[in-house]
Order: sequence, then C-alpha cells, then structure tokens
Amino acid sequence: MRATVLVRPKQGILDPQGQAVESSLRQLGFSVGDARVGRVVDLEVDSTDALTARAEVERMCEQLLANPLIESYEIELAEDEG
Amino acid sequence: MRATVLVRPKQGILDPQGQAVESSLRQLGFSVGDARVGRVVDLEVDSTDALTARAEVERMCEQLLANPLIESYEIELAEDEG
Repeated sequence: MRATVLVRPKQGILDPQGQAVESSLRQLGFSVGDARVGRVVDLEVDSTDALTARAEVERMCEQLLANPLIESYEIELAEDEG
Repeated sequence: MRATVLVRPKQGILDPQGQAVESSLRQLGFSVGDARVGRVVDLEVDSTDALTARAEVERMCEQLLANPLIESYEIELAEDEG
C-alpha cells in the first residue's frame, strides 16, 4: 500500500523557510500570504490492510518522519496501482 | 483561497533524502520501500476564482517553488474556512 505523509510546522511555530518563500514570491510580484513549508514523504508499506498500514505509518511519524513537538502530520493511504 | 503545492523529485531522479529515510525506517524495523521525500508549500492567494488561482500558483511553481527539470508539482486548492 502506498502512503503519503504530509509533515508541516505546527501553528505558532516559526517557519523561516515559509517566510523566505513568501518574501521571494512577493518580490516576483505575486500577492500571497501565510506561506508555510513542510515535507511530503511517499513510501510503500507492506500492509495491505488500511487500518494496520495507518497505525504503522503513525509510528514511523512519531519515531522518525516528524518532530511531534513542532510538527504535525497527515497520512493519506492509497491502494497500489495495477 | 488556500493553495497546497506538493513538490516531488521526478521519477528516475536520484533522491538521497528518500534513500536516507528508507534506510533509517528499515533500521527501526519498519518494512518499507521506495521512499521519496519532497516539499509541501501551503499559501494564501488573493484570487477567489479557482481557475485564476490555479494559473497563478502554476506560475509560482515554474518560477520559484519547483525546479521543473527535476521536480514535478501538484496543486490543490481549497476555499478559505469561515
């Protein structure tokens, strides 16, 4: 099963990368606000059962993919194509 | 309007960060494969019309958010809450 994990800085946590992106976009003439930059991790997990897969990916987030103190994560699961 | 942009390394492009994540997850005992790491950028755009907003965010991707040579991007739009 294919998992997509979105890791974002939590609300209230300073995000210098987001600030840099926002200021660069403005300098290019775009009218944008409140830019935040996070990571997206795509991976293939063995579990074919969605509940098991989600629980496993949650453990990966807590242990490695995200820093739960300052980042929140969102997990999306998709059946493999073909 | 709220835009979410997912920027990922294109297929066939080496992704050392993804390889590092995959090998670390395996060392932690997870059975995973084909990990890829990209960026997620959330931002607020002025346009209230979805077509205009999408076209504008596409220009941002081409000019700043992604490197079209080695990265692909995906744009999701959502009405503001409240």
